[in-house]
Amino acid sequence: MPTYKAPLRDIKFLMNELLDAPSELAQMPYYTQNDTADAELLSQVLDEAARFVEGELVPLNRVGDQEGCTRHDNGDVTTPTGFKAAYQKYTQAGWSALDADPTYGGQGMPHLISNVLVEMMNSANVAWAMYPGLSHGAYAALHAVGSDELKTLYLPKIVSGEWTGTMCLTEPHAGTDLGMIRTKASENGDGTYAITGTKIFISAGEHDMAENIVHLVLARLDGSPEGTKGISLFLVPKFLPTAQGGVGERNGVVCGSIEHKMGINGNATAVLNFDGAQGWLVGEVNKGMNHMFIMMNAARLGTGLQGLGLGEVAYQNALAYAKDRTQMRHEPRVNPAEQADPIIVHPDVRRMLLTGKAYSEAGRAMAMWLALSLDTEHHHPDEARRKEAADLVALLTPIAKAFMTDNGFNIAVQSQQVFGGHGYIQEWGMEQFVRDARIGQIYEGTNGIQALDLLGRKILMDGGRRLQKLAGTLQAFAEEHEGDEHIGDYVNQLGKAAQQLGSLTMVIGQKAMGEGGADEVNAAAVDYLRFFGHVVYGYLWARMAKIAHDKMDAGQDRDGFYLAKAQTARFYFAKLFPETKALAATIKAGNETLAVDDRAVFGWEQLVTA
Amino acid sequence: MPTYKAPLRDIKFLMNELLDAPSELAQMPYYTQNDTADAELLSQVLDEAARFVEGELVPLNRVGDQEGCTRHDNGDVTTPTGFKAAYQKYTQAGWSALDADPTYGGQGMPHLISNVLVEMMNSANVAWAMYPGLSHGAYAALHAVGSDELKTLYLPKIVSGEWTGTMCLTEPHAGTDLGMIRTKASENGDGTYAITGTKIFISAGEHDMAENIVHLVLARLDGSPEGTKGISLFLVPKFLPTAQGGVGERNGVVCGSIEHKMGINGNATAVLNFDGAQGWLVGEVNKGMNHMFIMMNAARLGTGLQGLGLGEVAYQNALAYAKDRTQMRHEPRVNPAEQADPIIVHPDVRRMLLTGKAYSEAGRAMAMWLALSLDTEHHHPDEARRKEAADLVALLTPIAKAFMTDNGFNIAVQSQQVFGGHGYIQEWGMEQFVRDARIGQIYEGTNGIQALDLLGRKILMDGGRRLQKLAGTLQAFAEEHEGDEHIGDYVNQLGKAAQQLGSLTMVIGQKAMGEGGADEVNAAAVDYLRFFGHVVYGYLWARMAKIAHDKMDAGQDRDGFYLAKAQTARFYFAKLFPETKALAATIKAGNETLAVDDRAVFGWEQLVTA
Repeated sequence: MPTYKAPLRDIKFLMNELLDAPSELAQMPYYTQNDTADAELLSQVLDEAARFVEGELVPLNRVGDQEGCTRHDNGDVTTPTGFKAAYQKYTQAGWSALDADPTYGGQGMPHLISNVLVEMMNSANVAWAMYPGLSHGAYAALHAVGSDELKTLYLPKIVSGEWTGTMCLTEPHAGTDLGMIRTKASENGDGTYAITGTKIFISAGEHDMAENIVHLVLARLDGSPEGTKGISLFLVPKFLPTAQGGVGERNGVVCGSIEHKMGINGNATAVLNFDGAQGWLVGEVNKGMNHMFIMMNAARLGTGLQGLGLGEVAYQNALAYAKDRTQMRHEPRVNPAEQADPIIVHPDVRRMLLTGKAYSEAGRAMAMWLALSLDTEHHHPDEARRKEAADLVALLTPIAKAFMTDNGFNIAVQSQQVFGGHGYIQEWGMEQFVRDARIGQIYEGTNGIQALDLLGRKILMDGGRRLQKLAGTLQAFAEEHEGDEHIGDYVNQLGKAAQQLGSLTMVIGQKAMGEGGADEVNAAAVDYLRFFGHVVYGYLWARMAKIAHDKMDAGQDRDGFYLAKAQTARFYFAKLFPETKALAATIKAGNETLAVDDRAVFGWEQLVTA
Repeated sequence: MPTYKAPLRDIKFLMNELLDAPSELAQMPYYTQNDTADAELLSQVLDEAARFVEGELVPLNRVGDQEGCTRHDNGDVTTPTGFKAAYQKYTQAGWSALDADPTYGGQGMPHLISNVLVEMMNSANVAWAMYPGLSHGAYAALHAVGSDELKTLYLPKIVSGEWTGTMCLTEPHAGTDLGMIRTKASENGDGTYAITGTKIFISAGEHDMAENIVHLVLARLDGSPEGTKGISLFLVPKFLPTAQGGVGERNGVVCGSIEHKMGINGNATAVLNFDGAQGWLVGEVNKGMNHMFIMMNAARLGTGLQGLGLGEVAYQNALAYAKDRTQMRHEPRVNPAEQADPIIVHPDVRRMLLTGKAYSEAGRAMAMWLALSLDTEHHHPDEARRKEAADLVALLTPIAKAFMTDNGFNIAVQSQQVFGGHGYIQEWGMEQFVRDARIGQIYEGTNGIQALDLLGRKILMDGGRRLQKLAGTLQAFAEEHEGDEHIGDYVNQLGKAAQQLGSLTMVIGQKAMGEGGADEVNAAAVDYLRFFGHVVYGYLWARMAKIAHDKMDAGQDRDGFYLAKAQTARFYFAKLFPETKALAATIKAGNETLAVDDRAVFGWEQLVTA
């Protein structure tokens, strides 16, 4: 049975030393008014979060996978044993309200802190964590664009966790391409709408953990245009609320089935049939796609945190196994009295472990930087700082989603490899991490879509402005430290890569404006995102290494934490960062070699040829 | 439900055009005597194999995954519905005897042909294919080193498929490190031995498909030395044979349990308890490890073919889905009358598909080259040719096992990605390919062990002799074609990489002989094997491209097959081969960054410090 200890030491290092978060938060009146910017308080909340997660969620992870969810004939869904009780403890302890607006019963804690809670929950039990996770997206959209009436009625229930939320986007024929959705909305004449259609792949779509479920549904209002411009967002509760905010009559939305999946079995992935269900418009008519992105951006970071959390827990268990399992001799011997040495002595095992450690710690640094930037974007008094933070959030969100889930999956696979044959057996739990991690690369916009979002929308469509700002920060850092005895070599690599990122962007942009068109963006995007991810991680590793060496030079490394940081940074630049060399070549290769003859290569006849 | 069509066109291209196999086989009296070198016959056998596999095995793949195997209280195991009936058809049609020695009822067909059959079976139903697959290893060891008495009694039964075989190596505390096994053998005084101990992870270890199971068991004879030098190989039948070769009394070996695994659920992975079971010595006392490697080398190629087969079938299904699924617009439009275009138009989808195609076709070329080299090694009249083939087999076997299973897993993952959310749902079958493919990287010696076998044993321990021979072949090819208008660029890349492989080998060898010791080999091996794999694939792609262009130049490409080969080669060199750039850097980085402080980085105290 896998174990998990929240990496509190690392989290606090990032919060206090890398990000200097308490000072940053202290500049934001929202947090000072809420008394939620205090370093000591933040630290205590994190300790409490770790206790809750380790004690309540870890033990349910395997149960959730094995039992899965059960749908009954009436459409009700029972979650795995213990899931509901843990959820009650979660809401009673106030975790569902952690970063929510105090106006609606929230605690007004920074995103920085809820981000860490979500990482921990994902390490402990990702299927369980998705139930409150989906509420988070629904809360964000409703809070941003909902009417006061809807907010007053629904937000306190979502914040308290009494009711959970969902995002109802996908339909059988419309996944990535939401412009094709067919679910329709008709005015009822009383200000409400009748929603009819079928939604699939709805995570946490039906369950017994909360007394009501608030579905946020994309649908096309009668008479609205085709495509994405005719989509509106509706709120459709499972039970209609009473005037007093209680649970009233059952609404016309039923779970038609739940999927049998590769993993995340503890979470009910529902087919939801809406049959004239009563709904309320959220935000403006035909602005549903814009409003959806509020949820989606929250969900994308949340999905990235799944990759981070699963990579971390898989790494932790591989590390424990590698210390315990003895197999083969090493010279010099570590266990002279035994028949073999612990496998952690073998360099290739160390390579796998350090890969997990280096990606997890850089991912955590990026996620916390992003979360603090969300706090800055929303609450900093200085408009320039807000704008700068918003730009960074825009760039980092697709990277957080795609790079962290790809790395998380790969860490899970490598950590499973450390177990040899035992990694393939269910009882050790490693194969569950692999299965659970796989979905993060697929949903909330596939990682290919994230790459297009980054390169196409976030970079090329604004003429590279956001990129230049970030690249400028990196290059300034690189120049400042190029002669540094410890990190000089890292920042040289980093500076070159940042420069290369700029020139690669130019090349792609020029090709895209020429004959190549959008295909050149599509052809390069996935490798480009990975390259960009390494540049961000390289920057963060160089900064972490700098802090670590300063501490060591000052004789302040009692427990070896800073030595570990410095050595992991060294590993990162020697063994992981060089992937950029291959990526630069494949990015440059462009679309030419993908534009193969369809008939010959794929046995496919285009209806209209280019 | 996934489909599968055996890639016969490609297989025959490789057999006849790339490898010129009929001419090669015609030089070997063993095959001319057996009338099994005829090009027309070989082609017909392949067609028949495809029909059997597509018709009988494909439909059982999902059933096998869902039902799994059932162990009963008495230790018997029932295989999934239809598995036994398909096995009867398999043996009745003579497939179990395909490449076996005619002396024992075999058909004496080349390895080249059985290799293709195994690839097809692995595409269709890898869990099923493992039952006859394990027999193949047992046959090989028994045929090579068994006494005449054992061979006469057992080989006809294994060849006919009436009895199947197993390899019983692993014990709970001894996986990679077989020197630690505790299963013991004691002389019974009548020439037989009493075998006692527990073996785990025994694929096809217990089942109802055949009337008897022949276990080949590693055990330590009383009084033998510790470690690998004291291990002998024993034959332990499930039922003792009668003098007439029938099935007699039950022997003292019982299936204690079967594992619940991530995949290959249709194959029973057994814990076998040997309790004084009667066994017969195979080969020489204390030479068990050597004899085991006969089985193991067969199993390693067979495992590589699992990666190849699963990658191929995953690719085929992703391709079909990409033509069928419409989502998002492409300019110019392909389906102007529809709302969206088939996703195959999007360059990133094409990238994923071409990755599957390029790795699968190069892998097939390597596997068939290796299989034909096995034929040459065993049956060529010219000793120099036999030796040369043996050297090539020694080099290519670990690459075939590790590179093909890593690529196969990655193709399965990417092909699943093409399906978006549907890829994560069981009913589409893509997630089963991922789960089934994962084990290939782990068993029969993890891919890390394959890398050590290649770099340590096969290259450094013979002073680079085998490597130099192969590199010489490649460089001669590169020099011959460096000015070629079509493949000149490929062979230039190839020539440089082959040279780099040589210099990287030198660097590692020097470090290993110096202070670095074996750790430097261990640190570099995995990346080295991957680099080597690309050099081999690059060589094969360049050769295939050369043939293709010659045919096209001669106006002989009626169906576009050669155009597809040429364009896939171009894709390979532009998008996959550049991985070597990153690998060269990480190989050069050596062990230095892995030799981190154990206490600080891993929280681990060595008992004896270096």
